[in-house]
Amino acid sequence: MTIQIRTLDSAQADFRQQLAHVLAFEAAEDEAIDRAAATILAAVKTRGDAAVLEYTNKFDRLQAGSVAALEIPRAQLLAALEALPASRRGALQTAADRVRAYHERQKIECGSAGFSYTEADGTVLGQKVTPLDRVGIYVPGGKAAYPSSVLMNAIPAKVAGVADVIMVVPTPDGIKNPLVLAAAAIAGVDRVFTIGGAQAVGALAYGTDTIPAVDKIVGPGNAYVAAAKRRVFGVVGIDMIAGPSEILVLCDGSTDPDWIAMDLFSQAEHDELAQSILLCPDAAYIDRVQASIDKLIGDMPRQEVIRTSLTNRGALVKVRDMAEACEIANFIAAEHLEISAAEPQRWADLIRHAGAMFLGRYSSEALGDYCAGPNHVLPTSRTARFSSPLGVYDFQKRSSMIHVSEAGAQTLGKVAAELAYGEGLQAHARSAEYRLK
Amino acid sequence: MTIQIRTLDSAQADFRQQLAHVLAFEAAEDEAIDRAAATILAAVKTRGDAAVLEYTNKFDRLQAGSVAALEIPRAQLLAALEALPASRRGALQTAADRVRAYHERQKIECGSAGFSYTEADGTVLGQKVTPLDRVGIYVPGGKAAYPSSVLMNAIPAKVAGVADVIMVVPTPDGIKNPLVLAAAAIAGVDRVFTIGGAQAVGALAYGTDTIPAVDKIVGPGNAYVAAAKRRVFGVVGIDMIAGPSEILVLCDGSTDPDWIAMDLFSQAEHDELAQSILLCPDAAYIDRVQASIDKLIGDMPRQEVIRTSLTNRGALVKVRDMAEACEIANFIAAEHLEISAAEPQRWADLIRHAGAMFLGRYSSEALGDYCAGPNHVLPTSRTARFSSPLGVYDFQKRSSMIHVSEAGAQTLGKVAAELAYGEGLQAHARSAEYRLK
Repeated sequence: MTIQIRTLDSAQADFRQQLAHVLAFEAAEDEAIDRAAATILAAVKTRGDAAVLEYTNKFDRLQAGSVAALEIPRAQLLAALEALPASRRGALQTAADRVRAYHERQKIECGSAGFSYTEADGTVLGQKVTPLDRVGIYVPGGKAAYPSSVLMNAIPAKVAGVADVIMVVPTPDGIKNPLVLAAAAIAGVDRVFTIGGAQAVGALAYGTDTIPAVDKIVGPGNAYVAAAKRRVFGVVGIDMIAGPSEILVLCDGSTDPDWIAMDLFSQAEHDELAQSILLCPDAAYIDRVQASIDKLIGDMPRQEVIRTSLTNRGALVKVRDMAEACEIANFIAAEHLEISAAEPQRWADLIRHAGAMFLGRYSSEALGDYCAGPNHVLPTSRTARFSSPLGVYDFQKRSSMIHVSEAGAQTLGKVAAELAYGEGLQAHARSAEYRLK
Repeated sequence: MTIQIRTLDSAQADFRQQLAHVLAFEAAEDEAIDRAAATILAAVKTRGDAAVLEYTNKFDRLQAGSVAALEIPRAQLLAALEALPASRRGALQTAADRVRAYHERQKIECGSAGFSYTEADGTVLGQKVTPLDRVGIYVPGGKAAYPSSVLMNAIPAKVAGVADVIMVVPTPDGIKNPLVLAAAAIAGVDRVFTIGGAQAVGALAYGTDTIPAVDKIVGPGNAYVAAAKRRVFGVVGIDMIAGPSEILVLCDGSTDPDWIAMDLFSQAEHDELAQSILLCPDAAYIDRVQASIDKLIGDMPRQEVIRTSLTNRGALVKVRDMAEACEIANFIAAEHLEISAAEPQRWADLIRHAGAMFLGRYSSEALGDYCAGPNHVLPTSRTARFSSPLGVYDFQKRSSMIHVSEAGAQTLGKVAAELAYGEGLQAHARSAEYRLK
């Protein structure tokens, strides 16, 4: 059984249009979903716990008596961790340790200490960096419940110094995912509520008697969650609205084609909208990858998802050379970029836009998804042109520090007044002039 | 003529509710404006230049023959700069130099070099930092056209290394603001188009034959611009949607009350919705500030705006002591926080949330607005709880770098496979296992 993947050649005259067509993805903006989310948010804002309880019991088919009853006590998280088989518990702990180590390095290297400098006249300028007070982490329930995402969202917040990390995760029909609870225990999540949907977003944004209001909400969710996050943006901070996951593989044609086929599968198995693209200068190698795909697909438990994803959104692209592949990669600005080649750093130096780069034949994306250390929450849908992996910096903010000396006020006051008069803001000018001797 | 400003006392039982009432501000979400913006965006996306030209000629009452004719050539920017009086030109240049110096420092101190480290088994992890390729800066036309904002938006982008900075500024009835053009010349803006409104946002987000598509749009605008920015978020990056400007003054009661009154005016004169609040432990001093306000208001050219702002949104608050003032300041999370006191650093150390802190009696906010160096684009409406001043970091993004060695793949592969099986993602597991020997 074969998979018919689109093949493109960069030498074709209309290649760029064809590529743009392959990349085109617009999240359905469903007005009905948006209105439903707005209604739920308004109810939670007005009626607090009562609304959260009603929606949760209704949508998740529960009979909870209060929102307090929806909280999972820490003892239960720890029990879930204790109950794991040793190998899985060890793997989760190793992953958490490596993610923490990378983000601690990131915290140090990315200016978390702030800075300050003194000018000749005694004026001091600088920047103070502080963690957010309280953060909410949305974790999807059901089939897309990934313990690795709990680690990737909670650990950077804790490394940043966020005192309160509140996790929400819906439990339809009361079914809890023990790996997710164990991950929350390992990541140091402070409180967990089994609520989801727009009602959970509303509870975190506005606060209720039981659920504390947070300063930022991160983590992926369904269309209602995304619509609700967009609407509460400004009341609280939010992370990017994630699109379908993508992998772009640049291969020089010397990697085992089975490896590349499986790397393409690993992205495609996420969901039908996921996107896997290969760029390679070697046409014969592309054929070998196609053959590997056809050979390996039958063994995949999620083969239907993979087949749909590769058929509808995948592409095997013949390029002129690796340099052209890098140029095309900059246009695509992929979430995950694998450079499976002999001199990966040489090509990585040409890449300006990518969420995460996986260099060399041994750096399969799956390693980064779980345990290499860097975050797996990455910009999708070409947004790597302007945004970054989730990181410690997302849980910090800066304040400018301005301490003007008496001498400094003499020089700066004249400049400020001159410009303030130019803008017609006389109180600004006077305020500066008062400080002149 | 006196101004009746609301007075509060933190000792009152319902103080927190009263304070919350004073701070409450919800941007009117006008469905009609949002729909109009959506219509304009769709037209620009579909018809490009033709739509931009039609809307511009209609809304700004122009008769341009093409979008190309709406571009201001660099020679005209330079001519505007040359034509300025020497004192104003000098002030603009000094401000630009100081803003550039601060942001260059910020670039160095905030991890722009990225980082990289090698683990014992040869695996290399790190982070690469790159500038955005192209950025759009929206500059409002008419009465709120501030040359200082051109500097504050464009200079950090240039310091970050953005190659193309495209400025848009509407010119209703064809009237151009020479100070704005001069500021664009000084800041190193690459191209300027005299377009505005949702049509300018659409042109920058989608690109037209004449106007290049950008990766991020920054800068304030009216309700149509804000609605359009919200809608293109995701296609491009955007900065925060700014609310009304605010100042919070913490004063120990020893600063000349005229200075404090004028500082409160300098915020209030921006617009009727601007907010000025004083926190002070000395009731008699608060009376002196009120007296200064009444004494000084008559001389202010913008006294009607100041009066409305202070009457509707201002407050003079008696607090127990400076420590309590800091605690309240953390709740308010003000855009501008002036600490006009004998030991300003002592109190600044207690502040967790503020856009910019102005320390000491000589650091009037006006100095920071124009020329101290730090950015004057700051988080408003309590968003300093989770966001930061505009900075070099807003024009950069990060990519994670993962180069797993053959030896590293042996350890990481087992951990990743274990967790992937736990999540039911078999292709992920196989992809990791292929790299095991």
